[in-house]
Amino acid sequence: LRLILLGFGNVGQGLGELLLEKRREINRALGLRLDVVAVVDSKGYALFESGLDLSEVLHAKRSFGTVAKHQKWGSTELDAIEVIENFDADIIVEMTPTNIIDGEPGMSFIKSAFRTSKHVVSTNKGPFALDYKGVINEAYEKGLNIKFSGTVGGATPMIDFAKKCVVANDIIGVEGILNGTTNYILTKMHVEGQRFEDALVDAQKMGIAEADPSYDIEGIDAACKLTIIANSIMNRYVTVHDVETRGIGGVTPAQILDAKNRGMAIKLICEIGEKISVGPKEVPLNSPLCVHGTLNVIKYSTELASDFFLVGAGAGGKETATAVLRDIIDIAYKIGEIKV
Amino acid sequence: LRLILLGFGNVGQGLGELLLEKRREINRALGLRLDVVAVVDSKGYALFESGLDLSEVLHAKRSFGTVAKHQKWGSTELDAIEVIENFDADIIVEMTPTNIIDGEPGMSFIKSAFRTSKHVVSTNKGPFALDYKGVINEAYEKGLNIKFSGTVGGATPMIDFAKKCVVANDIIGVEGILNGTTNYILTKMHVEGQRFEDALVDAQKMGIAEADPSYDIEGIDAACKLTIIANSIMNRYVTVHDVETRGIGGVTPAQILDAKNRGMAIKLICEIGEKISVGPKEVPLNSPLCVHGTLNVIKYSTELASDFFLVGAGAGGKETATAVLRDIIDIAYKIGEIKV
Repeated sequence: LRLILLGFGNVGQGLGELLLEKRREINRALGLRLDVVAVVDSKGYALFESGLDLSEVLHAKRSFGTVAKHQKWGSTELDAIEVIENFDADIIVEMTPTNIIDGEPGMSFIKSAFRTSKHVVSTNKGPFALDYKGVINEAYEKGLNIKFSGTVGGATPMIDFAKKCVVANDIIGVEGILNGTTNYILTKMHVEGQRFEDALVDAQKMGIAEADPSYDIEGIDAACKLTIIANSIMNRYVTVHDVETRGIGGVTPAQILDAKNRGMAIKLICEIGEKISVGPKEVPLNSPLCVHGTLNVIKYSTELASDFFLVGAGAGGKETATAVLRDIIDIAYKIGEIKV
Repeated sequence: LRLILLGFGNVGQGLGELLLEKRREINRALGLRLDVVAVVDSKGYALFESGLDLSEVLHAKRSFGTVAKHQKWGSTELDAIEVIENFDADIIVEMTPTNIIDGEPGMSFIKSAFRTSKHVVSTNKGPFALDYKGVINEAYEKGLNIKFSGTVGGATPMIDFAKKCVVANDIIGVEGILNGTTNYILTKMHVEGQRFEDALVDAQKMGIAEADPSYDIEGIDAACKLTIIANSIMNRYVTVHDVETRGIGGVTPAQILDAKNRGMAIKLICEIGEKISVGPKEVPLNSPLCVHGTLNVIKYSTELASDFFLVGAGAGGKETATAVLRDIIDIAYKIGEIKV
């Protein structure tokens, strides 16, 4: 399979490393050859139609800040859309940052992939949080595959679990903790009695919260993920704007202590029931839903087998890259590149 | 697909009810028709080659204690092996009780199914705990499928999760709580300070522990499940006799209190590392591994994405029947009865 990678930040570079480590093993075990023909970042691209040497591309990115400066393969001649449309590839791996205003540039990249009959793997929440149905329908109409495991739960296969492991048993409700940054902050406040502001600074020092942490803190990142789960697992055709969203900025040490004294913790809980909502909520400390630190969790309530809880790290570049690789292999099965 | 059900206790009757509820929906959604041509219990069988009416078979079982007394379809003329071998069926669903001395009668039923080219779904731990490799190899050599989701985790898809959702990322370690009865007893001791003996009686009153609870209490049930996981997920070709097994009979309220004061709980922990072992062990209360009541949990440590935890109810007749139905549908896909 020929891949074009769009976006070469944490996840993209993680995927580069992962392919370097695992490509030979995948070839041996599954008979699947994976070649990266182009890597596009915000400043240009590296292109080699016989397949890039990823260690060189990673080196160029780390040395010069862009793959475009690779001496043999780097270029700024074409823009990303032209790279997608002018070269032969099977799968476009779309890993640009989430933008919940208009989903760009990811949305245009995905449409451009479809226009030229390329399958898509994406880790970008924007297009799905804003127009899940439109994106999926377009793939369906063209007979193309689109997978987006990495948009939710980092490496933790929350969507695949629901689709592949819950069969002949309807999922009737979802609850979860889908943002590691806020969970880290709330854990700090719970365990150490810190104020929100101090726990946030602490998280920023640890590299867990970004310099502008508003998407996380205000619950928007969690709401995007919940939108994707609501659409893909529960057939609820909503956008992020339909999610009733409250952040954790108003949570006080006094509230947390009060909950703690009653055997509870305050968590940023995502919930799909009659309403779809994200907000701080008390959870019993002895519930499997009450995970700590940067962990994420999803609870699927089922018609016939009570509740399943799936817990794992919710982020990380290389971890999320494992979700991307899973999706690539899944598409390879579906299009017959791997024999069952 | 034509099914023969062997064993008609909790799980078998649960499957009967589940098929009554879901058969039409499965037919509509997947184009898969499921007919039960025979049900065998310990006293005889009911047989109707055009497909039994399961509500009548369930009614006979509940009224007379055996399906053999159904007035039209009941019989004791043939034994179970003859029923398996003399009638046309696609899948044998083997749900007889676990026997860890020689795996019988399940082992013979499975071999008999293979002899007459029938696929197998089993919830019986015995054959797999005693000779996993032999059973799997025989299926493989004959080109038949055997699935056994219901042997581990009840409805919780612990094995399917590892096989279908952890891809291109090796599982390097397993830890878990695989027996609900002992977890209930240890939870009672932890929360209420009860002695082991009193918590056991309590569990028996609740129907959570059996009259003879030794398989659970001594860790044997957990060791069987761990053996199946070690074989199927970790390629460790061991039998239940290779598992270093200790039960919970010796755990005292003083030990539990001491652990509790240090933020820990004592759990019956199953572990696959250098050794494969089952025994009481302290676990931090705030770890996702520390689940309470009758819940089960499995932790898969992976090479590239840290740990995944999967939590759910570990038992229940109808719950386990959902695992059986999952396996049946899986086999239907594999043999081309459902179009992808």
